Amino acid sequence: MRSSQYLLSTMKENPADAEVISHKLMLRAGMVRRLASGLYTYLPTGVRTLRKVERIVREEMNKAGAIEVLMPMVQNAELWQETGRWEHMDAELLRFKDRHQRDFVLGPTHEEVITDLIRREVTSYKQLPLNLYQIQTKFRDERRPRFGVMRAREFLMKDAYSFHLTQDSLQQTYDAMYQAYTRIFTRLGLDFRAVIADSGSIGGSVSHEFHVLASSGEDAIAFSTSSDYAANIEMAAALPPSSKRPAASASLQKVATPDANTLEELAACLSLETSHLVKTVLVHAHHDTEDNATKDNSVQLIALVVRADHQLNHVKAEKHPLVASPLTLATDEQIKALLGSATATIGPVGLKVPVIVDHSAAVLADFSCGANEDSHQLVGVNWDRDITDYQQADIRNVVSGDASPCGSGTLEIKRGIEVGHIFQLGDKYSQAMKAGVLNEAGKNQILTMGCYGIGVSRIIAAAIEQNHDEYGIIWPDTIAPFQIALIPMNMHKSTRIQQAAEQLYNELTAAGFEVIFDDRKERPGVMFADMELLGIPHHIVIGERNLDQQQVEYKHRRSGSKEMLDIAQVVAEMTTRVQI
Amino acid sequence: MRSSQYLLSTMKENPADAEVISHKLMLRAGMVRRLASGLYTYLPTGVRTLRKVERIVREEMNKAGAIEVLMPMVQNAELWQETGRWEHMDAELLRFKDRHQRDFVLGPTHEEVITDLIRREVTSYKQLPLNLYQIQTKFRDERRPRFGVMRAREFLMKDAYSFHLTQDSLQQTYDAMYQAYTRIFTRLGLDFRAVIADSGSIGGSVSHEFHVLASSGEDAIAFSTSSDYAANIEMAAALPPSSKRPAASASLQKVATPDANTLEELAACLSLETSHLVKTVLVHAHHDTEDNATKDNSVQLIALVVRADHQLNHVKAEKHPLVASPLTLATDEQIKALLGSATATIGPVGLKVPVIVDHSAAVLADFSCGANEDSHQLVGVNWDRDITDYQQADIRNVVSGDASPCGSGTLEIKRGIEVGHIFQLGDKYSQAMKAGVLNEAGKNQILTMGCYGIGVSRIIAAAIEQNHDEYGIIWPDTIAPFQIALIPMNMHKSTRIQQAAEQLYNELTAAGFEVIFDDRKERPGVMFADMELLGIPHHIVIGERNLDQQQVEYKHRRSGSKEMLDIAQVVAEMTTRVQI
Repeated sequence: MRSSQYLLSTMKENPADAEVISHKLMLRAGMVRRLASGLYTYLPTGVRTLRKVERIVREEMNKAGAIEVLMPMVQNAELWQETGRWEHMDAELLRFKDRHQRDFVLGPTHEEVITDLIRREVTSYKQLPLNLYQIQTKFRDERRPRFGVMRAREFLMKDAYSFHLTQDSLQQTYDAMYQAYTRIFTRLGLDFRAVIADSGSIGGSVSHEFHVLASSGEDAIAFSTSSDYAANIEMAAALPPSSKRPAASASLQKVATPDANTLEELAACLSLETSHLVKTVLVHAHHDTEDNATKDNSVQLIALVVRADHQLNHVKAEKHPLVASPLTLATDEQIKALLGSATATIGPVGLKVPVIVDHSAAVLADFSCGANEDSHQLVGVNWDRDITDYQQADIRNVVSGDASPCGSGTLEIKRGIEVGHIFQLGDKYSQAMKAGVLNEAGKNQILTMGCYGIGVSRIIAAAIEQNHDEYGIIWPDTIAPFQIALIPMNMHKSTRIQQAAEQLYNELTAAGFEVIFDDRKERPGVMFADMELLGIPHHIVIGERNLDQQQVEYKHRRSGSKEMLDIAQVVAEMTTRVQI
Repeated sequence: MRSSQYLLSTMKENPADAEVISHKLMLRAGMVRRLASGLYTYLPTGVRTLRKVERIVREEMNKAGAIEVLMPMVQNAELWQETGRWEHMDAELLRFKDRHQRDFVLGPTHEEVITDLIRREVTSYKQLPLNLYQIQTKFRDERRPRFGVMRAREFLMKDAYSFHLTQDSLQQTYDAMYQAYTRIFTRLGLDFRAVIADSGSIGGSVSHEFHVLASSGEDAIAFSTSSDYAANIEMAAALPPSSKRPAASASLQKVATPDANTLEELAACLSLETSHLVKTVLVHAHHDTEDNATKDNSVQLIALVVRADHQLNHVKAEKHPLVASPLTLATDEQIKALLGSATATIGPVGLKVPVIVDHSAAVLADFSCGANEDSHQLVGVNWDRDITDYQQADIRNVVSGDASPCGSGTLEIKRGIEVGHIFQLGDKYSQAMKAGVLNEAGKNQILTMGCYGIGVSRIIAAAIEQNHDEYGIIWPDTIAPFQIALIPMNMHKSTRIQQAAEQLYNELTAAGFEVIFDDRKERPGVMFADMELLGIPHHIVIGERNLDQQQVEYKHRRSGSKEMLDIAQVVAEMTTRVQI
């Protein structure tokens, strides 16, 4: 491709409205342009990378036995009403009416459509298992779309859905998808990890997320330093401390702390380590029957206690049988009804609600907690002596240095960007939609399902978050918009340079390489900067002086290393250097 | 692909709700399933064909110098308001609001989005010409979606848009697209014609449609028998007859025709050929100013007169300067106000409105027309004597046998399905959206545009309309879901058959062929019928008796011819027979 006939659209300046580096670089490199909030047009270089990611995903899905289908983006409301998601999903599900005033949605996902298809098409156990996927445009009306294509409203996704008679069969396909995802992200050239994940609102039990590791990632992931254990921090179990609780040695006292506004100030004021303070959060209790679950002041509360230097883990907390899901904080009014005043300085001593204590907080002795009174702490607090009715659970986020729950090594925390997620759904959708087949015994049996997603367009942003420097993007070879940048210096003033460039361009493209031939009338510095910004992995620079020796300069974008190549050897050299 | 692990979903019976053969066969062959009105899920075989069509289109667009982009399906209303289409388009443009109550549309086409992009990104004549395309999902909320994917609401389209400084440059790209389309439809293996077309409401002047010829086509196309002239019947000029009008010989008389209900009955009753009767249609006249164009009874009418055996051509009529566009028939009330009664038996004699006569009707003498009175005809009517104020124009459809307007040969009429359309748009959108660049003189100049569409999903239906028989689809090799059907007879009872089949399957797939290996436990008749229905072009049947001679039976789906092949020669034979 000749850049003079292409739409490069690079920008020198950082765009003002982009917050993260991938968004900035995708705008600057001319990969995307914003049409409206969360809506992006992919420019030529953006589409090239998008199609490459798509192709790798498709090839690996086919290899893994998944079969491609294509479902509509516009879906009729009836199916969503059947599963209850029409009512339960928030405004992220974009609902609209067609010209005949019938209700539709713009598909954010396709569980309903595929389950409807399968219940019509598949009638016998002989047709199972079946794993169907599509690569298709999705729409989620995010309240606050941001970070460019990382969290766009319209985006490209690979979604697969598998159908089974047995858990064993589901596990087999799940494992095959796990392996396919591993191959996909390996081929994409990304540093990634599969982590144990929460299946959240989509339903089901077992689930793994695939994260591209990047310091800018939104998610925290806990790794074992000495095994391949990895889990989303929401899911990483914090083991109970092996140490025993020391005996109580101090007596219970109330202390005024009028000037302490931060945890550190409070600890200093009490002459304690922050790890010897606990924080207490009041939340709604779980109700067995729905009619009790009104959110008036009579709602029952639960106290959650963690060490002040730890963080409460919402996912773990709301999975506790005593706690309402989703986790709901007590209102000021509810706290006032309980304590007589709407204080934020809460503690478990004397509290007339059930108390759940994190294991790490439960091994403290002579610790400090809120006195249920503004600007007052209790010190010398001890479990069993001062608080007799409580239970222990794991309700905190793990921290770096915790023992790994796999039993081997300690945990390390890294940041990741979620680009894939696989779920064992069970029968949540098949049950609601009565999707069953005749089993070997001739009886109707509800199907067991799995679902498997990859954020195709999101991968591009994640790849850039992981692969960039101050000059721009550094593409892995397999998803670079072009493999080679051919940069002739001052070609328009030198017939010799032009001839050498044209010949090399013809030879490289004939050998099957994807070359961007920078034939613009630009200064060399502009061309170098654009090709670095674009992240083209291999640069070949043609200059007068080197041409005297029948040589060109080769530059590797990632390492920055430069070397001279004989012009006759360029094609052969590229064949060994360009990864496909 | 082993059919036992695939989702074939074939059906024996013709589905009740399908009207056209392609829709019936796509349902029966398990290519698509209806989700809701005009919304279809593509099943595995449907997706395979869709992706093949898509690939051929993409390859040829790239070769022709078009550059791929991808624009959002969801578009903000502001752009559509700028060009006025937000107000002027009917309910086919699906409008909706997002969660913040902002207006959006589901893109039926992308002139606005691309023109907005170009006016931002392209600032200098040096960046032109530019031809950008995408292959993307469109939505048109058709009032009555029908014929399966032929006229669906959600569909896959290739749309390209080119931008130029001069008409010459536009013509060059237009010609390149014409050639690319010709290559595309040739590679797709379809019998097609490029025809001169009306550019309709999208704007612009020059335009060609590409039609797949099929007797079931919705459109009529006129061809010259001895040149390559071809035009949509809307656009084919009917030359004035070379014969002169005979002299008047009969006197004007009014005749009662109480029992004549059809044209033939009327002609018989009057002892005339149908070609000696004329029919007269009253339509609204064109108004210069908008405020006169109210559709009340005071609207001015025009009489259009064509031979009774000819058809009025609406496109030609509404292009006449006296006639309102779009063509609007007079209401009963308007006819009553003109004639005193709301009769349908209208004729030009004594009519107090302007009369436009088709050339063929204007050479009649002693003809018959309506008497402007129910069940009464005038006979012995003659122009100039009985109707003195009229003008002639070409306002009829051509018919088979008419002289070709190219000057060579006569016209023949065939049916076609429109699968592509190229337009020279001019500055309709660039003017409305102020899309200009600095030209060589340093002045701002509004761009000239072309646009070029291909109905990717529609091609599948059109290919089937053209290529089928009583047993099912007959795919051209290049877009068949599989190239080869491997059909072992009673494999589950014979180890020898199974071994031969497995070996051939491995050899054929290793050679790069796309094979559907029918390994189901089905009777041979069921397998043959399914593979014929699916339209797989090349069938290889493995049976016990032939295997004794180390042979298999080869069947060519289209010709139906069968022959024996040495099993060792199958791969080599397929290499010459399968077209890629």
